[in-house]
Amino acid sequence: MQSCAKSWGILFAKSVNPHAPCRHIHGKSRIFGKQQNIIQTLNNACVTVRGLRTSAVYAASRQIDRILPRHDDFAERHIGPGERDKREMLDVLGLESIAQLIEDTVPESIRIQRSMKMDDPLCENEVLERLQKIASKNKVWRSYIGMGYYNCSVPPVIQRNLLENSGWVTQYTPYQPEVAQGRLESLLNYQTMICDITGMAVANASLLDEATAAAEAMQLCHSYIGVKTMLKLPHEMDFSGKDVSGVLFQYPDTDGRVEDLTALVDRAHKGGALACCATDLLALCVLRPPGEFGVDIALGSSQRFGVPLCYGGPHAAFFSVKENLVRMMPGRMVGVTRDAAGKEVYRLALQTREQHIRRDKATSNICTAQALLANMAAMFGVYHGPQGLKHIAERTHNAALILAEGLKRAGHRLHSEMFFDTLKVGCSVAAKDILARAVQREINLRVYGEGVLGVSLDETVKERDLDDLLWVFGCESSAELIAEKMGERVKGIMGSPFKRTSKYLTHAVFNSYHSETNIVRYMKRLENKDISLVHSMIPLPITWNEFANLHPFCPLDQAEGYQQLFRQLEKDLCEVTGYDKISFQPNSGAQGEYAGLAAIKAYLNSKGDAHRTVCLIPKSAHGTNPASAQMAGMKVQVVEVDKDGNIDMANLKALVDKHKANLAAMMITYPSTFGVFEESIDDVCNLIHQNGGQVYLDGANMNAQMMGAKGLVHATEVAILNANYMAKRLESHYKILFKGFCAHEFILDVRPFKKTANIEAVDVAKRLQDYGTLMIEPTESEDKAEMDRFCDALMGIRQEIADIEEGRMDARVNPLKMAPHSLASITSSTWDRPYSREYAAFPLPFVRPETKFWPSISRIDDIYGDQHLVCTCPPMDVYESPYEEKRASS
Amino acid sequence: MQSCAKSWGILFAKSVNPHAPCRHIHGKSRIFGKQQNIIQTLNNACVTVRGLRTSAVYAASRQIDRILPRHDDFAERHIGPGERDKREMLDVLGLESIAQLIEDTVPESIRIQRSMKMDDPLCENEVLERLQKIASKNKVWRSYIGMGYYNCSVPPVIQRNLLENSGWVTQYTPYQPEVAQGRLESLLNYQTMICDITGMAVANASLLDEATAAAEAMQLCHSYIGVKTMLKLPHEMDFSGKDVSGVLFQYPDTDGRVEDLTALVDRAHKGGALACCATDLLALCVLRPPGEFGVDIALGSSQRFGVPLCYGGPHAAFFSVKENLVRMMPGRMVGVTRDAAGKEVYRLALQTREQHIRRDKATSNICTAQALLANMAAMFGVYHGPQGLKHIAERTHNAALILAEGLKRAGHRLHSEMFFDTLKVGCSVAAKDILARAVQREINLRVYGEGVLGVSLDETVKERDLDDLLWVFGCESSAELIAEKMGERVKGIMGSPFKRTSKYLTHAVFNSYHSETNIVRYMKRLENKDISLVHSMIPLPITWNEFANLHPFCPLDQAEGYQQLFRQLEKDLCEVTGYDKISFQPNSGAQGEYAGLAAIKAYLNSKGDAHRTVCLIPKSAHGTNPASAQMAGMKVQVVEVDKDGNIDMANLKALVDKHKANLAAMMITYPSTFGVFEESIDDVCNLIHQNGGQVYLDGANMNAQMMGAKGLVHATEVAILNANYMAKRLESHYKILFKGFCAHEFILDVRPFKKTANIEAVDVAKRLQDYGTLMIEPTESEDKAEMDRFCDALMGIRQEIADIEEGRMDARVNPLKMAPHSLASITSSTWDRPYSREYAAFPLPFVRPETKFWPSISRIDDIYGDQHLVCTCPPMDVYESPYEEKRASS
Repeated sequence: MQSCAKSWGILFAKSVNPHAPCRHIHGKSRIFGKQQNIIQTLNNACVTVRGLRTSAVYAASRQIDRILPRHDDFAERHIGPGERDKREMLDVLGLESIAQLIEDTVPESIRIQRSMKMDDPLCENEVLERLQKIASKNKVWRSYIGMGYYNCSVPPVIQRNLLENSGWVTQYTPYQPEVAQGRLESLLNYQTMICDITGMAVANASLLDEATAAAEAMQLCHSYIGVKTMLKLPHEMDFSGKDVSGVLFQYPDTDGRVEDLTALVDRAHKGGALACCATDLLALCVLRPPGEFGVDIALGSSQRFGVPLCYGGPHAAFFSVKENLVRMMPGRMVGVTRDAAGKEVYRLALQTREQHIRRDKATSNICTAQALLANMAAMFGVYHGPQGLKHIAERTHNAALILAEGLKRAGHRLHSEMFFDTLKVGCSVAAKDILARAVQREINLRVYGEGVLGVSLDETVKERDLDDLLWVFGCESSAELIAEKMGERVKGIMGSPFKRTSKYLTHAVFNSYHSETNIVRYMKRLENKDISLVHSMIPLPITWNEFANLHPFCPLDQAEGYQQLFRQLEKDLCEVTGYDKISFQPNSGAQGEYAGLAAIKAYLNSKGDAHRTVCLIPKSAHGTNPASAQMAGMKVQVVEVDKDGNIDMANLKALVDKHKANLAAMMITYPSTFGVFEESIDDVCNLIHQNGGQVYLDGANMNAQMMGAKGLVHATEVAILNANYMAKRLESHYKILFKGFCAHEFILDVRPFKKTANIEAVDVAKRLQDYGTLMIEPTESEDKAEMDRFCDALMGIRQEIADIEEGRMDARVNPLKMAPHSLASITSSTWDRPYSREYAAFPLPFVRPETKFWPSISRIDDIYGDQHLVCTCPPMDVYESPYEEKRASS
Repeated sequence: MQSCAKSWGILFAKSVNPHAPCRHIHGKSRIFGKQQNIIQTLNNACVTVRGLRTSAVYAASRQIDRILPRHDDFAERHIGPGERDKREMLDVLGLESIAQLIEDTVPESIRIQRSMKMDDPLCENEVLERLQKIASKNKVWRSYIGMGYYNCSVPPVIQRNLLENSGWVTQYTPYQPEVAQGRLESLLNYQTMICDITGMAVANASLLDEATAAAEAMQLCHSYIGVKTMLKLPHEMDFSGKDVSGVLFQYPDTDGRVEDLTALVDRAHKGGALACCATDLLALCVLRPPGEFGVDIALGSSQRFGVPLCYGGPHAAFFSVKENLVRMMPGRMVGVTRDAAGKEVYRLALQTREQHIRRDKATSNICTAQALLANMAAMFGVYHGPQGLKHIAERTHNAALILAEGLKRAGHRLHSEMFFDTLKVGCSVAAKDILARAVQREINLRVYGEGVLGVSLDETVKERDLDDLLWVFGCESSAELIAEKMGERVKGIMGSPFKRTSKYLTHAVFNSYHSETNIVRYMKRLENKDISLVHSMIPLPITWNEFANLHPFCPLDQAEGYQQLFRQLEKDLCEVTGYDKISFQPNSGAQGEYAGLAAIKAYLNSKGDAHRTVCLIPKSAHGTNPASAQMAGMKVQVVEVDKDGNIDMANLKALVDKHKANLAAMMITYPSTFGVFEESIDDVCNLIHQNGGQVYLDGANMNAQMMGAKGLVHATEVAILNANYMAKRLESHYKILFKGFCAHEFILDVRPFKKTANIEAVDVAKRLQDYGTLMIEPTESEDKAEMDRFCDALMGIRQEIADIEEGRMDARVNPLKMAPHSLASITSSTWDRPYSREYAAFPLPFVRPETKFWPSISRIDDIYGDQHLVCTCPPMDVYESPYEEKRASS
């Protein structure tokens, strides 16, 4: 029941000091736990500018602060339990104060003794005001730089109802498909769209970014660590030695060129290598797709399908493969299966490849999808449909054709005659003069140097933009006149053998929701099938023009707002963590791990310790750790833990002793996944350092660790209080895996029920759906009533298990084994269970028909799904649409 | 089943011309049909800038427009049916083209023969870009002008999840309470909040604005038309003649003064008059409320409870009365009643007072509430709770105390020593020097003239703002130092007899949702009980800083963006309607009617025709018409209509002949509420004009009338096509009240079923809820599938009626009489109906458990509710909260 909410990575590093070896922690923090990258930067900046030190508010020493206090405080609003709640919870725990709880929970040795230097907290409206000022320092010029990032028209209807809608933004990873059918359907749409457009057989539900996708493709080809890359021109590539595992090329390439790569693919195949193609979804709407000339893996960014530039990310990467590679494909994949009632439903397919199930079988350390942004891209496809996308692609291509014609007239030379939207231009006059005119019109071009410039057009380009570009390049004609001269002659791709002839997006879902009314209803229908936090954080400033529409390679002086945010966030995070430098590069927790270990490896190598490759990882560590260690070229050694999840110090000492000559690092999750702050943390670090190793700290719950008694933030205190309160309430009903007070989370041991009632963890999890409560970690934002509700549910379930144990309820047909109970099953005339409808659906008084969240399907059948793998939209006749059926009589 | 979506008013007038008498139309247009005023202006501006002439797009004559066409078009997205849909619908109608349909529908005589001059259509993103530019012309200074408008901190959590959430914004009037319990609960919270804070017994669910509320209060006092107002100081007021019906005063008054008005109220009562008090909700959080010194009616604006200034509106006015006046209270009121299952539920109380039921008993013509903004204010109260509101009020008051102290030190004179947030200042130096300094700091003050200035503070005032104000007024001290000197001495209201001692907002709903998580969940829970369009129009720019935070009385040069919008909208609307001038003043359709008739009356009076007071109104007119005519001092004469809703010309001629000497006006709804464009419209106008009268046109569906064959917009065509298609499909099942082709709507005659099956319109309406489809007018945004679904539902219901008629279904217990079927009833173990659960809840294949919208309660009991009138939140023990109950065993 451990949450796997999406996380992000920060890499911290101490300034290099030969005596104090560099340490790394990888931050996966709940309070920072959001789905995006720049988005996270912005929100984290909000978190830091709004500050965490609420206590400062109460210690007002000036009279004016007493009679004119701040009128609202975000932190107070964000924290669930009020003062009375807290008092009651402390009473249950038999404690006098929260301070006492913290003393008993957080080891003295790791508490910070200094107070933190951060700006005073602001209220939410002040944060927005300040962000507006920061935003105004970014300059939004027209960027025609390309290189994988293109302006696009984000349909406002999708922006508002998906990107800015907490019902979509805050959804958890769909590990419980019965309450996640909406997102799963949308991701299946995404996969179908990618397969259709690339012409490939199977696609996953997105990867972190295009670079990751390319790396994963090469990884797949090579299938072991340490792949060497060589840059060669196609004709120089030699596969004859059969020692090449794969080839990766771009189509169209970064310079805009479209060329026929069929022969290269054939040569690769003959040499036993796989062919990987980085490509562009919009181009493929008019270009022959890679799936039609033998490519094994097609990948790229789906940013230009309706996702703002956002200074470089996050954007969903797509990754699609031939049928035979499906079980080696990295990332998450949505598949079709059936539920207990035999209905066709969606779920995450092939989950056993994921590290949270069997870490040793993990295909890669990237299980993270950019689900939100993949969903945006999918909805872009649903909204425009095949005709709409083709229209956009042709329009973009035609703009490039007009511009190309104008540039040639002005005497410039094009590097390629066959292109989609990007021109590489050998200038006939000094490039600096062209660039100076570009500055006048607030236009960014790609600068190659030596008189060569690049221009990448996109769907937003209008006649006026073309006229400006023509003027910038010194062409005296206008787009209108050039178009007139070009006449009806179809040129470019549409008149070439590269023209796409195959259909795509023929499925009903891409041909039904082109009106605003219909797409909103469709999105709402999907949203309502899913449990989400329905919790709007502070309004996402990502959709503000000045944040959304900045190209990542625009000149730095156009991005001063972003730079300020980065500086501020680094300063605050360094202050909180006690580190000296921070890298914001990693795009996910898993990437943070990889980057941290890679840094350790590089550091050791630089010291001449290249032989140090052993990485110690406790059994209780987060699942991505071993995969990351392997990817960084280290050998994993597992450290035992005791029954409470503490590191077995004897075992650790033995392992360190055995490997001390080759010890590279130890990875520690702190507090542990058992939610315990281990007293021994200092001893562990010293032991590793003394033996020449580095410590990598997985700070998955950094906010609970970030800080000592003095600077301890209220949010952390409350999160710890909440967890301990719940543990206390449940301890007489369940076995709890920790001793004393826990940190932010704890583990209920349900293993004994397997023997006594044939009940497993999955049955309890599914049954919780019936109780309508899926709380996973009692973070600081939940109040006591919500926690009581969750405890009541777990106590109710314990009673149901007792009913089975003691023979009052059938061991095969009971509410746990049959859970979850969908609305369809409860409302059916047919009801043959040995328990009532009410017992099934409304097991406690707070679960009521009108407020209950209903699972939209019965329990899914994972085995069936893996045996009958279908990862694109099923045929239309089973596809659910409210419109397509009629009463037979009408 | 006629929709009563909220509407707004525009008043059109021809330039004065002695030979062409002034005509008025009152626009209640579906395409413009939104809830707000400035909001509407903005959105209408969007409508006009985005243009309606989609046909222009297709007639591109330039080559560049062909190869580089605009990439998206709002109008196309907004229109539901695609080309194939349209073809199929025309086939059903047996028509060749839409043009043919229009020829048969819109009389030749009223089609405009010119083409309209409007800007080219823009795509949605371009509209937003243009609006951003317009917005930047508004200057947001700090305004301390007061006069009923105050800055406030709009809680972002409410802004995003309510004001910017289409689930709340697009809800219809809650005439079907079974699918509107969420809004009704929120409005009941509003009423409770108003009663608690004002100390009054009953409040309504808001009125249009404070001015309307004040007028309604005097109207209530006087209870007949023509009330004369006299401005007098309290001590001058003489009630001894017993000829005074009421007194209206402000507390605190516009100059900020707080005084004891108990004696005045007593004198009024002794003289047989009622006492009305215009007051301020925030002030009453610390001030003794009017209900505690005998006031009969308390009213005011609830703007400062979390609603942006928006250059003056819309804001919800509150209106509360003593118990004995409840049945005379204008406006809508939410009340508590029970449903068929005996559950305590909410609905609109005392609806018989509303003009749509019995027009002759209408208490006023204002049935419109500012529901959205009342809900915002209610949520502001729910979010802050009594402590929070008191905190805000004290803070605001303290700021005023500090400022007052500083001003006195600087030698200025205060007009009153007892104030809440507003100071009237006699300046000790030249006011123009103070104002010049205010301009330097971008601050607006109230200017009285003759050396007197006003300052109104509010909850957003911070120390820095006070320092700026002190500097502006030439005070050399700072807020901090003044506060220090004032020390702990409690001054002002809190140390006076005016201090409020009674409690307010003690109900659980105002004490449970103070954390962000809880308030979001509460709002979402309410939202999910209600049917709404869930249809986001273009993102509301109202929440943009430059539109939201402008005080209505700021200098004009700070509002240039607004001015540009008004000019553009006036230009476009004049072009569309053929009128010369437009007044945007009226705040609702009903106010538009009143303003139009008042203008006609003034015009007649100015011509010496004061005796002309007869107003002709067809039976088929909108219900507000007679009430408006009465309010404008006219006498109503009803004109007969034939069975198709056309004006009975013989009857009209007779009436005109009878009243020609005193004929003032005729009010026409065009197209009629039967949805027909009457050929005779020209004849009617001529007849009235020839007899010295004016014609008032209620353009409730102006967009269907706005335009002739040539300039006919696509949206209108499709709306007409949709209506005719549905009428065609239904005509063999139901009797339809029109002949030939209809305009935008039609009426099904269900009266015969009363005799044959004891089924009434209400049963059909409630049963439609079970079918999950509540479409009311087939506007252009619905596609064919949705219309088919609605037709299928109506045909299914017709079949169910036939089952009763032919004895196959019980005449008392049948799905129509029992409708709607709530989830609670369907999921219950007990089911004793003579039809199945599936028949009740899933009558057609497209109604499925997982996508169906469920009524949250069974059919409400209106009679019980009116007999047991409860208009505030019921006691806590019946109040629904998911948190307060526990399993008895735990």
